Amino acid sequence: MMMNLTPKSHKIVILAEGSFGVLESKTATVLVRYLPDNVVGVIDSINAGKDVSEVIEIGVGIPILSSLSEAMELEPTLLAIGIAPPGGELPHEWRSIICDAIESGLHVMSGLHHFLSEDVELSELAEKHDTILWDARKPPDDLPVATCKAGDVDASVILTVGSDCRVGKMLSGIEITKEARTRGLNAEFCPTGQNGIMVWGWGIAIDAVVSDFTAGAAEEIVLEGAKEHDLLIVEGQGSLVHPGYSGVTLSLLHGSMPDAMIFCHQPSREIVARYTVPLPSLIEMISQYEMLTAPIKPAKVIGIALNCFDLSKTEAIDAINSVEIETGLPATDVVRFGAEKLVDAIQAFNS
Amino acid sequence: MMMNLTPKSHKIVILAEGSFGVLESKTATVLVRYLPDNVVGVIDSINAGKDVSEVIEIGVGIPILSSLSEAMELEPTLLAIGIAPPGGELPHEWRSIICDAIESGLHVMSGLHHFLSEDVELSELAEKHDTILWDARKPPDDLPVATCKAGDVDASVILTVGSDCRVGKMLSGIEITKEARTRGLNAEFCPTGQNGIMVWGWGIAIDAVVSDFTAGAAEEIVLEGAKEHDLLIVEGQGSLVHPGYSGVTLSLLHGSMPDAMIFCHQPSREIVARYTVPLPSLIEMISQYEMLTAPIKPAKVIGIALNCFDLSKTEAIDAINSVEIETGLPATDVVRFGAEKLVDAIQAFNS
Repeated sequence: MMMNLTPKSHKIVILAEGSFGVLESKTATVLVRYLPDNVVGVIDSINAGKDVSEVIEIGVGIPILSSLSEAMELEPTLLAIGIAPPGGELPHEWRSIICDAIESGLHVMSGLHHFLSEDVELSELAEKHDTILWDARKPPDDLPVATCKAGDVDASVILTVGSDCRVGKMLSGIEITKEARTRGLNAEFCPTGQNGIMVWGWGIAIDAVVSDFTAGAAEEIVLEGAKEHDLLIVEGQGSLVHPGYSGVTLSLLHGSMPDAMIFCHQPSREIVARYTVPLPSLIEMISQYEMLTAPIKPAKVIGIALNCFDLSKTEAIDAINSVEIETGLPATDVVRFGAEKLVDAIQAFNS
Repeated sequence: MMMNLTPKSHKIVILAEGSFGVLESKTATVLVRYLPDNVVGVIDSINAGKDVSEVIEIGVGIPILSSLSEAMELEPTLLAIGIAPPGGELPHEWRSIICDAIESGLHVMSGLHHFLSEDVELSELAEKHDTILWDARKPPDDLPVATCKAGDVDASVILTVGSDCRVGKMLSGIEITKEARTRGLNAEFCPTGQNGIMVWGWGIAIDAVVSDFTAGAAEEIVLEGAKEHDLLIVEGQGSLVHPGYSGVTLSLLHGSMPDAMIFCHQPSREIVARYTVPLPSLIEMISQYEMLTAPIKPAKVIGIALNCFDLSKTEAIDAINSVEIETGLPATDVVRFGAEKLVDAIQAFNS
């Protein structure tokens, strides 16, 4: 398992130059949301001078700064790359900022496809300045082909699945884990993507694993989480109807061998984002997941997490009610209304 | 696309030292079956002196040799690694044989996980002797995330799918392609695994691709094949009920966007090999494939290829009849009875 850095023990400055608050800065938003006590500032010269909360509605009191040198006055110990563009390449103009950060003694945490630790210039510089380059997306060596061992763990395993990318599989997983912990349950979130790994400090980015070993990586995550926890909330990836990533989704489904699933969806989403593929009905999509678990270890969807960020409160409540009637399952928007209903469903399932 | 070597233009000696004729020498068997005019000998000191056909029932007239130096008398131009080593690493005694082959001016073709072209000792030696190390399993750089472009090609795309690994997806694909060509169809086999690639001379081993790009690799294969052919037979991988490889299978299904599928199965197989997962009924397995194509590009299974290698002729005929009744689809064993029936089904589908 990757545990090179513990983000929660650092003062983090996020690099989001030119992109803070847009879709490509999801990493920055996630770090602000889940490590608010660690993030000391965000670098984005376009929004410099504002408070983070003026741009993304969370992160009150965190300043947006014009440059790394301005950020250094806040005495950060870690630079987090706050962007994860499709393709994953390192924006050329950021290289000099990263070099400056390393020379200032900062560790660097990145979720890019382009691994900083394999970049000759950056890794030599980091070695010279005794700082760590942590590629959250870089999988461990020697992952196995899946062997169905995840089905043998004592812990209850819940997988968040969904209709598409960016519908809330990570966020729901974290919110469910936090709510379960407030109830005294020995719960752990099991990250499977770079953003979750950066927030939570461990996990494997399974979409960066060679496909023969992707289910094996999911299995390893479950075995690791089950060592010290009774309830595992495994972060889902992609969707079974996603033309590019469906294989990642199925590897995760079969490798993690969940006992039950939480289905995540954005009610306003009608086609797969960036494609022209219409989403099937919720019932059809849920049925696909359940049918594919059946031959290996049958699991049911026991709750729905709706991402209603683009709906009014009234519209969100209507969407939730409508989905509950359509599916017969408890539904909620975990950001707006909390994860209580879903943890109720998990506790009822486990009892 | 990988086209570093054209095996059909070489005189091939196969390295199968200590393992010829056992399960781990599948590569050797496939090369003997499909490149009989190119294979001049097989190296295996245990069976040295025999004819290949005495060990694997095909390959009449091809000698088994005790050593590379004996094989060199047949003037080969290419050494093919014909076996998978236990543990994945290159055994020490093979390394010296490969070194000797390179020093004798032979190119080397390999489907091992351990890439010869990234091995410092071997690649330096190959450069010195001006020979090529071709890793059939090594995917090209810069593969894309799938974009559904495979759905736009003019060619008709047929994907071989199946119930498990090693049930005949590659072999059926090649036999169908050959039969289609004898009928004058402009057909091409599209290899997606190392053995098919070594036999056919091009393709991408999609199980060696990082999972984010696996469907994209399948898409690239179809786009490449469609440049000069009207009918593409795409080699399937794994199975939707395989705990380790199901993600590879689904990536291939969604990336290649077939118009129709041929379902491959071994009638005597009741559980997933090396696992304890019972195979669902044929109808259920076929339905899974069809259901997963539906949201992106609907495709039906139009024929069944049965691998009856372990049945008597009477048992094979009974199995075929029984499957035809069960599924309502034409079925055959392409090795025993030819691929005519399946090409009939493809032509009927395309007309």
